[in-house]
Amino acid sequence: MSISNIKEIKSCNDGISINKFKANGIKTEKYGVALIWNENLCDCAAVFTKNSIKANPVKYDIAQLNKRKKFKAIIANSGNANACVREGLADAEEMCKIASEKLKSNPDEILCESTGIIGKRMDIEKIRKIVHDLDINEISSRNANKALMTTDTKFKEISYEYKGIKIGGICKGAGMIAPNMATMLCFLTTNANLGENYDVSNAEILNECLKEAVGESFNMISVDGCMSTNDCIILLSDGTKTCSVDDFKFLLKFSTKELAKKVVADGEGATKFLEVVVEGAKTQNKAKKIALTIVNSNLVKSAFFGENLNWGRIMSASGSVAKINFDNIDLKFEDIDTNKVVEVLNKGIANKLDDWGIMKAKNIRILLNLNEGENNATAWGCDLTYDYVKINAEYN
Amino acid sequence: MSISNIKEIKSCNDGISINKFKANGIKTEKYGVALIWNENLCDCAAVFTKNSIKANPVKYDIAQLNKRKKFKAIIANSGNANACVREGLADAEEMCKIASEKLKSNPDEILCESTGIIGKRMDIEKIRKIVHDLDINEISSRNANKALMTTDTKFKEISYEYKGIKIGGICKGAGMIAPNMATMLCFLTTNANLGENYDVSNAEILNECLKEAVGESFNMISVDGCMSTNDCIILLSDGTKTCSVDDFKFLLKFSTKELAKKVVADGEGATKFLEVVVEGAKTQNKAKKIALTIVNSNLVKSAFFGENLNWGRIMSASGSVAKINFDNIDLKFEDIDTNKVVEVLNKGIANKLDDWGIMKAKNIRILLNLNEGENNATAWGCDLTYDYVKINAEYN
Repeated sequence: MSISNIKEIKSCNDGISINKFKANGIKTEKYGVALIWNENLCDCAAVFTKNSIKANPVKYDIAQLNKRKKFKAIIANSGNANACVREGLADAEEMCKIASEKLKSNPDEILCESTGIIGKRMDIEKIRKIVHDLDINEISSRNANKALMTTDTKFKEISYEYKGIKIGGICKGAGMIAPNMATMLCFLTTNANLGENYDVSNAEILNECLKEAVGESFNMISVDGCMSTNDCIILLSDGTKTCSVDDFKFLLKFSTKELAKKVVADGEGATKFLEVVVEGAKTQNKAKKIALTIVNSNLVKSAFFGENLNWGRIMSASGSVAKINFDNIDLKFEDIDTNKVVEVLNKGIANKLDDWGIMKAKNIRILLNLNEGENNATAWGCDLTYDYVKINAEYN
Repeated sequence: MSISNIKEIKSCNDGISINKFKANGIKTEKYGVALIWNENLCDCAAVFTKNSIKANPVKYDIAQLNKRKKFKAIIANSGNANACVREGLADAEEMCKIASEKLKSNPDEILCESTGIIGKRMDIEKIRKIVHDLDINEISSRNANKALMTTDTKFKEISYEYKGIKIGGICKGAGMIAPNMATMLCFLTTNANLGENYDVSNAEILNECLKEAVGESFNMISVDGCMSTNDCIILLSDGTKTCSVDDFKFLLKFSTKELAKKVVADGEGATKFLEVVVEGAKTQNKAKKIALTIVNSNLVKSAFFGENLNWGRIMSASGSVAKINFDNIDLKFEDIDTNKVVEVLNKGIANKLDDWGIMKAKNIRILLNLNEGENNATAWGCDLTYDYVKINAEYN
């Protein structure tokens, strides 16, 4: 798979409503509900938060996925995270029941997710009322996306096609950083059928592909390094298009990276988008760790907000998590929009830079080459701003 | 050693200049130099940054300490970190030479440290000039402290006595967070002689004690979780007071904790001091990890700045690094100044709190009991404020 294949990926502007997948949602003042459904049972793959304190819908979904891998729909709400509340498991089950009645299906064919305040009981009657009002004859991926927005300021929707494989997705989350609402929800739909040519089921292969794609996309973004109780990525496939694992993985990785980048570009208070590319590392793990540490560092992030070329902070962050030979280091900054490149360090020797114009760019790529091996990794983030503190201090 | 012994610790107001230790310093506009010295050779123990990118004075000191354990003096400067600069090792050596000429001693009897901008060569002539101007007949721990201040707004000096053992100390650092100056320097002096009753040397025992004390003090504070290239803690002992290891450790832990707390209380932009006490953990390591994660979380820190009782963020941070059984959790907030306690969670059940007055306190203790074991740990930090971002964005 080369980079030139990306040209063959076509945007189809359906959001999550590709093929026969349908979606709609309603956002009211406090609560919002999104429904995503298919008339047929779909193979399901999912990745959930590693936080040991899991929200009730996460616990519910994990239990359901341990029993079966075929589902028809997802119901998700904003306004309450249904986390750290004892009665919450029954509320999650009730949400699925409400959705099943609306869609005239079985509650066991529904998964659910929540985002919002931790520690307060859900107002299940509000959910019931919104679902009652929801028009399932209207198809609007955009409405579903809107229903889940909390501190988000931008829609995060994609749909792509490659060799007949389609992937649609919506995503909610301004990083993992929203106040008391520290949540990233991502729902993906596809037509890919990977099971036919293999000895394992479609759901199993989808799960492997999803884990790998998440490792290179959602696990490589950070707004503030905080991990939520509710984070989840759920993928449904109606299996109508037989395809190769390689082709599917290629499109899935592209799709999840595009969504992940939309999340950090909308990071709370962010004024700049940062892409950190670590090259030439001895191991993949080392490249990943360094890239994430740079993108997570409050010092690096506030330097970019201030448009100061404090490269020492990048080196200090790198050295804090891995063995770095400073004399080998090449460091470049690139304006992603104009492709203008500024060389900051050349084998550990700093260039005298009089022009810091590069720091004024909106979208900046940091290229750090360790020159010690063959492994690369990319992470994405944003700057740390007054507004991040404001949003997270004032939320009530 | 019980808490009641603390009453027997007396403050002696000497700062680092206890016994025959002397100190003085000069701060000029860009650079500052501090000298700490003793007429006699002292046993030395030290702990340095674990950052793999080490500043040149750190590399120099480590090499010196591998050769010998007896030193007479420390020279330290602010204004330049002497890090990520190839010629810097020679500059560190030259600094020690300059100090040795002033003190009429051997360069090999001197250690050095630096704090300031990374990646720019030191102006060694400025250091030479300041040392030339320094009056070594004047003794002023305060001047030495002042000479090392960068973004610090408060002096960080202590001197205590317990059973005839004295410990003096000065500390520089507004967390590990200063812009391009991410550095915490701490110098300690003592009269303790621990070697006489043991088969190992005084320096060896001092080193063991220092490592243990740092683990419970400087390693348990965080302003922004960033680790510097220059961090160091150096302890000199003139060995004039024979004492037990237990008594010395007791005083050393108390002293380093007091200094560490002064660092976070002066954290850049901080408006609140936070003490996080994790109790009832299965292992010590788990208690430490959770306490540090809470104190490091941007979400928790901005909630305290905003005076919002978002306890969900504390639980989410805890669960992100360790297995937590939420149904066991007790959580209390205490106003450290008035000892007023508010119960937030009782075995995982949230109290309905109408009065958030506790959040208006300046100094807040967060008491989290996991109720699963016998291990406790305490960490210290501060809130995340507009001023933190401002200071770190605008520095140039």
